[in-house]
Formats: sequence, structure tokens, C-alpha cells
Amino acid sequence: MEFSSKLLEKAVYEMSQLPGIGKRTALRLVLHLLKQPKEQTGLLSQALLNMREEIKFCQSCHNISDVAICEICSNQNRDHQLICVVEDIRDVMAIENTGQFRGIYHVLGGKISPIDGIGPSQLNIPTLVEKVKTGNIRELIFALSSTMEGDTTNFYIYRQIKECDIVTSTIARGISVGDELEYADEVTLGRSILHRVPFENSFKNT
Amino acid sequence: MEFSSKLLEKAVYEMSQLPGIGKRTALRLVLHLLKQPKEQTGLLSQALLNMREEIKFCQSCHNISDVAICEICSNQNRDHQLICVVEDIRDVMAIENTGQFRGIYHVLGGKISPIDGIGPSQLNIPTLVEKVKTGNIRELIFALSSTMEGDTTNFYIYRQIKECDIVTSTIARGISVGDELEYADEVTLGRSILHRVPFENSFKNT
Ligand SMILES: [Zn+2]
Ligand SMILES: [Zn+2]
Repeated sequence: MEFSSKLLEKAVYEMSQLPGIGKRTALRLVLHLLKQPKEQTGLLSQALLNMREEIKFCQSCHNISDVAICEICSNQNRDHQLICVVEDIRDVMAIENTGQFRGIYHVLGGKISPIDGIGPSQLNIPTLVEKVKTGNIRELIFALSSTMEGDTTNFYIYRQIKECDIVTSTIARGISVGDELEYADEVTLGRSILHRVPFENSFKNT
Repeated sequence: MEFSSKLLEKAVYEMSQLPGIGKRTALRLVLHLLKQPKEQTGLLSQALLNMREEIKFCQSCHNISDVAICEICSNQNRDHQLICVVEDIRDVMAIENTGQFRGIYHVLGGKISPIDGIGPSQLNIPTLVEKVKTGNIRELIFALSSTMEGDTTNFYIYRQIKECDIVTSTIARGISVGDELEYADEVTLGRSILHRVPFENSFKNT
């Protein structure tokens, strides 16, 4: 791509460093900013800078937070003995949206992945193990994605804490509510049958 | 979407103001920046701000430029009597990429669109008409997209300059090189037949 302006080229280049944003899309976005009032570019740049400079992670669960201990961890109406282990903050947001979970979270910040050079020490695993060993924890729910990396991570954590007197569980996998059985993949359908629930529990929400 | 941080929420909001970027995509992009070194966010923000504050438009053709008269307009090896009229700077880039055009451009900055409230005066039409009337122009090539707005814009300009002694043309429409006839839309195929070229011209590149 030949640019008639270095300023434009640089802006498109930096924008295209974002994941899933190719050069063409980046150019479209940058030209859009150029048509809008200057204020919009100012607001965007400032919001990104402020976020990157000032954002904090909760010292307890590692969720993104504007204060040292996040709202969820500091909420005394939540069950602090029940911890849901998730990969990243989007999972926290997704589970919070269901309104079904009253415990607290522990955000790992990723999954163990030897291929990507991510080992246990780069994740928030030590603080979780510490919490289980010293804390007053009743149950740990693993809610990582069911990939090889997710399973490896679950198993690694499980081995570190299996001497502790706590319940461990994983979220149920199965056919999505409303989905047709015939279109489900066989692994999911298999798990749905294996982990069937008593009928009288199937219409309870909590 | 419930955010655990106002800084994050604001960054996602501003990012999602960009066209085609929904809240979910914006969150993914912002979380990516959070995982990268702070420098990357700094470079992106600075590049956007510099671009928006300092970019210029060529005083002659309205192409984006870092100087008052763009490289194309100031290139004496190009044919300044041949002007290609385009909608925006992406069209200039696309045509330059072909290496087939040795004239200069005139960037309108959009198309006449009464529905969107865009009239001739909001586009770079007066400077084009002025250029044709006072300048030493031989030919005007209309290269707008072949939509109703494009046709309206072409025709509006055509009426303003039809008294002038210049040639006007439009770029050829037809079946893309390499495309199967059976999958072409009928309007395009119809134009391909109507505007057929002498066979001996069909394998010339220029
Ligand atoms: Zn927390
Ligand atoms: Zn120019």
C-alpha cells in the first residue's frame, strides 16, 4: 500500500497492530476519524492512554479494577468460600451477566501453553494455590475453556491443591439451551448424556 | 455489558465509536493493549493524534498530503491535462497501485447524497469546475462507484462543464479479469457486452 502521507501511514500502521485489524480495515478506521471532529480522536487517544496507564488489577482476584480490591471481592454479600477460576476478565463479565453466581473469582490471566511459552509462573496460579492453602475456601469451580490448554491448566492447579480439604468442580458442558440435538458436535452431546442431571433439577434456575 | 472499571468502560466505549467495531470487538482490542507493553498504546494514541492534528489536504487535488501540494500534483512527469475524478483517497491508492494511470486526480471527498444531506457544496466540486474552466485540461475521467449517488454526482459535474471544450469519460465496467461469466450479475454482464473493445486492444495493457 502506497500512502501519500507519512502521518497517515503511521496511524494506519499502529492501528493495524491490533489483532484482527488488517491494513485495509485500519485505513478505513483512520479515514473515518479524519472525517469526524478532532475531538473524537482526542477522546479515543486519551481514553486508551488513561486506561493503559492507570488501570489496576484487584490484589485478591486479579480482575481489572479502579481500586486495590475490586467490587466483587469487597462485597460482603458474596460467598467468599466459593471461588470460580477463569481465564480472563471477559469470563468474569460473562458469568456476572448470568446473575447465577454469588461466589468470587480468580482470574488466571491465560492458560498454560508450552507452545506459546506460557508456564504456570506467568499466570496468577501461585496466588490461587496460596489462597486455597491458607484461606477458608470451601469449593473451587474450574471455568476454563475445554481445550487441551484449559485441561492442562485445570490439572496443574488440581495437583497443587489436592491435599487440601476442598471440593473441586468444573462447569457443566452440554447442548446449549434451545439448540437442536442433531446439530451438536458429538463430544458435547456425549458429555451432555454422561453428566445428565436429575429431571427435577433441570427446571430449577439456581 | 457490566464493567469492573470505569477506565476500561470508557476505553471500550470510545473504541466502539469506530465504524464496524462493536462493544465485544472493542473489549477484545482494549484487553489486547492491556497485555502489551505500555509503549504500544502510547504509539497508537500519538500516531492518531498527530495524524488528526497535522494532516493536510493537497490544495490542488484534495488528496491527503503532508505538504501543501501533493507528490502526484507536483510530479512534472505526470500528465496534468488528464484528471481522474474519484470519491476518496482510497480510490487514489487503488488506481496508483495499478501503475496504469499517468494523469493527476481530483478527490471529491464523497458523493452527492440527498438522503445523507450531502450536497455539491460539501464536496470538492467547485474547485474541480473552476479547474476545468480556467485550466488547460484535456480530459476528465469519472471514476466514482456506479451507484445512484455516483451517477448523480457524475451528471451534476458534467452539466457544470459541458460547455467547456474537454473530453469526459468514465472507467470501463465489466466482468472482472478471471471471473466466470455465469456468476456475473446481469447489469455488469450487459455493460461488458455493450462496451466491448476491439479484440486487438484486449491484450494491450496500456
Ligand atoms: Zn477482586
Ligand atoms: Zn494533489
